[in-house]
Amino acid sequence: MTVRFAILGAGRIGQVHARAVAATPGAKLVAIADPMADAAKAVADQYGCEIRTIDAIRDSNDVDAVAICTPTDTHADLIEAFARAGKAVFCEKPVDLSVERVKECLKTVTEEGAALMVGFQRRFDPDFMALKKAIDDGQIGKVEMISLISRDPGAPPADYIKRSGGIFRDMTIHDFDVARWLLDEEVATVQASASVLTDPAIKELGDYDSLNVILTTASGKQCTISNTRRASYGYDQRIEVHGSEGSVSAENHREARIEIANANGYTRPPLLNFFMSRYTAAYANEIAAFVDAVANGTPMPTTGDDGLKALELADAALKSVQTGNAVRIS
Amino acid sequence: MTVRFAILGAGRIGQVHARAVAATPGAKLVAIADPMADAAKAVADQYGCEIRTIDAIRDSNDVDAVAICTPTDTHADLIEAFARAGKAVFCEKPVDLSVERVKECLKTVTEEGAALMVGFQRRFDPDFMALKKAIDDGQIGKVEMISLISRDPGAPPADYIKRSGGIFRDMTIHDFDVARWLLDEEVATVQASASVLTDPAIKELGDYDSLNVILTTASGKQCTISNTRRASYGYDQRIEVHGSEGSVSAENHREARIEIANANGYTRPPLLNFFMSRYTAAYANEIAAFVDAVANGTPMPTTGDDGLKALELADAALKSVQTGNAVRIS
Amino acid sequence: MTVRFAILGAGRIGQVHARAVAATPGAKLVAIADPMADAAKAVADQYGCEIRTIDAIRDSNDVDAVAICTPTDTHADLIEAFARAGKAVFCEKPVDLSVERVKECLKTVTEEGAALMVGFQRRFDPDFMALKKAIDDGQIGKVEMISLISRDPGAPPADYIKRSGGIFRDMTIHDFDVARWLLDEEVATVQASASVLTDPAIKELGDYDSLNVILTTASGKQCTISNTRRASYGYDQRIEVHGSEGSVSAENHREARIEIANANGYTRPPLLNFFMSRYTAAYANEIAAFVDAVANGTPMPTTGDDGLKALELADAALKSVQTGNAVRIS
Amino acid sequence: MTVRFAILGAGRIGQVHARAVAATPGAKLVAIADPMADAAKAVADQYGCEIRTIDAIRDSNDVDAVAICTPTDTHADLIEAFARAGKAVFCEKPVDLSVERVKECLKTVTEEGAALMVGFQRRFDPDFMALKKAIDDGQIGKVEMISLISRDPGAPPADYIKRSGGIFRDMTIHDFDVARWLLDEEVATVQASASVLTDPAIKELGDYDSLNVILTTASGKQCTISNTRRASYGYDQRIEVHGSEGSVSAENHREARIEIANANGYTRPPLLNFFMSRYTAAYANEIAAFVDAVANGTPMPTTGDDGLKALELADAALKSVQTGNAVRIS
Repeated sequence: MTVRFAILGAGRIGQVHARAVAATPGAKLVAIADPMADAAKAVADQYGCEIRTIDAIRDSNDVDAVAICTPTDTHADLIEAFARAGKAVFCEKPVDLSVERVKECLKTVTEEGAALMVGFQRRFDPDFMALKKAIDDGQIGKVEMISLISRDPGAPPADYIKRSGGIFRDMTIHDFDVARWLLDEEVATVQASASVLTDPAIKELGDYDSLNVILTTASGKQCTISNTRRASYGYDQRIEVHGSEGSVSAENHREARIEIANANGYTRPPLLNFFMSRYTAAYANEIAAFVDAVANGTPMPTTGDDGLKALELADAALKSVQTGNAVRIS
Repeated sequence: MTVRFAILGAGRIGQVHARAVAATPGAKLVAIADPMADAAKAVADQYGCEIRTIDAIRDSNDVDAVAICTPTDTHADLIEAFARAGKAVFCEKPVDLSVERVKECLKTVTEEGAALMVGFQRRFDPDFMALKKAIDDGQIGKVEMISLISRDPGAPPADYIKRSGGIFRDMTIHDFDVARWLLDEEVATVQASASVLTDPAIKELGDYDSLNVILTTASGKQCTISNTRRASYGYDQRIEVHGSEGSVSAENHREARIEIANANGYTRPPLLNFFMSRYTAAYANEIAAFVDAVANGTPMPTTGDDGLKALELADAALKSVQTGNAVRIS
Repeated sequence: MTVRFAILGAGRIGQVHARAVAATPGAKLVAIADPMADAAKAVADQYGCEIRTIDAIRDSNDVDAVAICTPTDTHADLIEAFARAGKAVFCEKPVDLSVERVKECLKTVTEEGAALMVGFQRRFDPDFMALKKAIDDGQIGKVEMISLISRDPGAPPADYIKRSGGIFRDMTIHDFDVARWLLDEEVATVQASASVLTDPAIKELGDYDSLNVILTTASGKQCTISNTRRASYGYDQRIEVHGSEGSVSAENHREARIEIANANGYTRPPLLNFFMSRYTAAYANEIAAFVDAVANGTPMPTTGDDGLKALELADAALKSVQTGNAVRIS
Repeated sequence: MTVRFAILGAGRIGQVHARAVAATPGAKLVAIADPMADAAKAVADQYGCEIRTIDAIRDSNDVDAVAICTPTDTHADLIEAFARAGKAVFCEKPVDLSVERVKECLKTVTEEGAALMVGFQRRFDPDFMALKKAIDDGQIGKVEMISLISRDPGAPPADYIKRSGGIFRDMTIHDFDVARWLLDEEVATVQASASVLTDPAIKELGDYDSLNVILTTASGKQCTISNTRRASYGYDQRIEVHGSEGSVSAENHREARIEIANANGYTRPPLLNFFMSRYTAAYANEIAAFVDAVANGTPMPTTGDDGLKALELADAALKSVQTGNAVRIS
C-alpha cells in the first residue's frame, strides 16, 4: 500500500517533511497547504504535488495521512479535525502548551480510533538508535544514570520565546522525551534549577536560558538534563547512559571530519550549527517510521501520550524551579 | 538550463549515479540503458525515466549528457562514440587499462571538442574537500609530506581481479589521483614495494594485496600510499597532509557515532564497510559538479588527463615493484 | 630554607606523601610515626628517615612541618596539637565529619596563628590546573555551567563506609571542593537526589551509591555533580566547564595510550583503576605547594575553610536528598 | 644484589640517567664523571654520589656498571675499555657512526664476555610496550604492515648535524630499531626518498630534513617510516601496526589532557615539545631493565647487535636515496 500524504504548512519544518515524504518508498506526496501562496508553490513545484486548502485536504479521498507543520496553537484543533476525518496524523511536538488541552485532544483521537504520531525526532537519529540498541542488547547491563546535554547555538528571537511556552516546554521537552525513552521507567520526581545568564531580555520575558534538571524514577534511576541557549561551538547534543556493566555515549556531529594541527594545538571544526542539519537523517527516519506504521496498521512509535508525558515533566520542572522543591509526578 | 541525462549501465554504480542525477537540481534523468532488462526497468520505475538502447541514447535529441557505467573494456569506445555525438560525457575511471588506448581516446575527445569528466569521487568527498580547502586557505603553510592510507575490507572476487588490471590500476589509482590533487605538483619519481600477504590465490593471479608507494616531486615533496586488500575493521580511508606550518588530516567514517565503555575498554564501532556507503555524498557531489560544468560550459573538475596521469603512475609503481628501482615520470 | 618534614601514619596515603616529600626539592623527610612498627620501618628504610612517636615528633626541634595521614577521627585533635606546637600542618581531608568539630578546630588553628593546609589533591592535578588556567586566561569567557562526573571503580568495604560519614562526605566532597574552586563564587542552594543501585548492603548501612547534585550560586551559575560507586570501565574523573564564549573539558587517564581496531570496532584500554595512580602527579604537586608555602611563609593554597565549606555542602546535599527540597547555604 | 652505578658524562642525557638510577630499586649511584666540574658537581650534590675521573671509575672496585653518556665519537673506545675492566656497560646509541668500527667494538665486547646494552629507549616506552604486548598476545593476528611517523619539533643546530652522521643515522635510526622490534623479522630491502624542505642550510651540510622509507622483509611484510625535522605542533611519535586480524596504534602525548571548544572549533593542546619529556618514563624503564639484567645475569634487552643492525639500515637507506634503487640487506 502506498501512503498518500499531505503536508499542512510549507514553512521550514514542512519543507523538511515534504522532502522526507518524497524520499520514502511507499509514500507519495499528494498535496501541500499553506496560506502563503509562494511557500506552497515552491513545495508543489519541487515535488510535483498539488496545492490545496487545509479544508480541502481534510475532505480529500486521495489523502491517507497528513503531517501537521502549522503553528503550535493550531495543532490540537487540526489533530482533532483530521482524526475525525479518518486520516492518520503526524504532528510535530507539542500537541499544545496546555496539559488540559492535550488531554482533551488525545481523548478525541482515542474516541475516533485515529492513528496519531507526535514527532520526537531524536528517537529516530541513527546514532541515538544505535545507542538505544546497545542498551537493549544488554551491552551496559541495567540502566542506572543518564546524562543529557543539549545546548543551542543561540537563543531564538524574543517573538518566538513569547509563544514557545518557555525553555522547558520548547527545548527541554526533547530531553524529557529522550529521558523517558532511555530510562524505560516513568519519572517519579523532578528537581530543577534555572537562571538567565546569556541575555537579560530573556528574563524580561519571564523565561530562562540555563538550566539543570534531575529526574528520579521509583526504582532510583536518575537522569540529569543540562540545557543552555548559547553554545559558541555549535549545536551540542550529547547522551551518556551509565549502566551496571558499562556505559554508552553518542558523539556530536561536526561540520567536517577533519583536524588541523599547528603551534596552537589540534583543532577539529565546530559542531553543526542548526538542528535541521544535525537531525536530517532523524527527520527522514521519523517520517519513514510513520509511513511504515500507517501502511501496516501497526502502533505508532511515538504517541500522543508521549507528547503529554513530556509536557507534564516540563510543567513539573518549572514548578520545581519556582518552589525549590522536588515535584512528584503522579 | 536543465541538463538532460542518460545513464549507460544499470548496475551498482549506474544506480548510484541515477539517484544522484535525480537528486541534482538542474538535472533530469531522461533514459537508462542496460542489456539486463530487469535492471533497466528497476531504474526506470524508480526515477520515472525511459529505457533506451545505448545507440538510441547516442542518437537522442533530448539527451545532453551521459554517464558511462558499463564494464571497463567498453569505456574508451563509448567515450569516443558519445563525444562524436556531441554529448557531454561522464565516465567512471578508468578510461582504459592501456595508457596507449587512453591517449588515443583523449585525442578523439579533444578533436571533437567534447566535454569529458573522468570520475574520481574522492575529490568530491565533503571531508576531503574541507581538508583541501584548509590547505588552499594556507592553514598548514606549504605542503611537504602526504600520507594516504587506503585499506579495503576484503579482496574482490578472483574474476574481478583478473579484469581489473591489478591492484595498482584498480585500487591505488584513487590514491594516485588524490596525491596529484593535494601535491599540486606533478610526480617526478615512483618507488614501490608490494607483496601478497592475505591470500595466495591473489599471487596466482599475478597480483598483489599489500603495497607501499613513495611519490616524490621535482621540488622534493613526498607522498606515501599504503594499501591492503584486507582490513578487519572496515573500509579505511585516511589522508594526512603535513605542511610547513601545520598538518591537516581526515577521519574515517564509522557505522555509528557511539562509544561503549566496559571492563574491556572504550569501543567505537568499526568503519563503514563498503565504498558506496562511505562515499555516498562524494558520488552525489561528483555528479552535481559535472552537471554544473555542463550547464555553464565551464571546465570539467576532473579530466581525461587526470585519468591518464593516474594510470601512468600505476604503471610506474608496478614497474618499480618489479625492478626495485625508482621510476621516473617523464 | 629546607622544610624538615615528618609524616604521621605510614599507611597507603602516608607512603604517597613520604615519596612526595622525598622528591620535593627544598623538603627533607626527617621522621615517620606509626603504631605498626613494620609499616614505619618500611618508610624509614626506603627514605632514610627516623622512626619516632607522634608525641616525640610534636616535641622535636628538627621538624618544621607534618603531614597527618592517620585515621579521620584523629585529624582534629592532631591538627590542634601540632598547631599549638608551632608546626605547619598538612592534613588529608576531612578535618572531621562534624561541622561543629571542624569549626572548633579551625578556631584553635587561627588562635595559634598556625599554617594549615587541608588536602584536596584534585586542585593540583596537572590537567585540572591546565583547565583552570584556561578559564583564568579568559579562554571560555564567563563561567556559566559546570559538569563534574566522578565514578569510582567499586565501592569501598562496608567497614570503611561505616566510618566514612557516607558518600557525600567521603566521595562527593572532592567534587564540592572542585565546584567551589571553578565556580569562583560561593554556592547558594543545593539540590540532590541519591539512591542505592549497585549493592543492597550499602542501603543497610544507611548510605547511597548513586547520586546527582545541582549547585546554584547567587548569580545563577550552576554546577552538576554525578557520582556512582561502580564504573566497570575504571576510575572516571571528568570536568567540563561551559562559559559565555566557549567550553573546556579534561579527559580521563587510561592504562595506556593505544587503540586496537578489529571486527568488533576500535577499542582503547579502560581507565586507570585506582585513585592513587590517577592522581600520582596531583599528590606530588600538592606536597610541593605546601612546602613552597611553608618555606616562603605565603598563604596555603587550600585551607581549613575550604575543608569546612566542602563539608557544609555535603551536609546540605544529604539534607536535600532527605527532604526533597533545595537547601540554602547561609 | 645492589648494582653499583657510575655515569660517564653529566650532560643532558647523563642527568636523565642519573635520576633514573637514583629512582631504581636495586641500583645505587656511586660516581659521576665529567670534565666540566660544575656539571659533575651538580649531579653529585643532587644524588649524593662521588665525583671521579673516567679512569678512576674504570679502576674502581665499588662500581659494577656504567652508563656512557659522553659524545658519540668516544663511545666505542669507552665500551671497549669498560668491557675489558669487567664492568657492565650501558651505552646510548650509537656505538659509532661507522659500521666497521661498531663491528670491531662488538667483537671486543664478545671476546671479553662483557654485558653491553645499547640504548633504544622507545622499546621501553609504556605505550609502545602495551602496543607490542597487544601484538604478542595475538590481538591483531600476524603483523603485515607497519607505519612509523616521527617528526621533530625543529632541526638541531648545524654543529650537531655536522657530527650526527646525518638524519638517517641520528633520527631515523630509532625508527629502524622500532621497525626491527615490531616486524620480528629482519629487513630484506630498503627503499628511501629524502629531500630538504625546511631549511637550505641543511642542504649545504649535505643532509636531508624530510624523508620516507619502505622496509620489506623476505616474507613480504612492509614498514614505512616518515620523518621530518620540523613539526609545528610538537614532537610527533606515532606507531601503527596492521595485522591479519586487526590493527594497533599508539597515540601522541600532549601538554595537557584538556580540550577547549569555541567558535573556532575544538582544540587540544600541542604535543609535548621535547624528546626528554615525551620519553621520561621510557628512559627510567630502560635503566631499570639494564639494572635488572645486570643484577640477574640475564641477557640484555637491547644489544650491541641491535645497534649495529639499525646502523646498517641507516646506511642502506642513504644509499637508496643516492641511487634510487632498492638496497638489499645481506
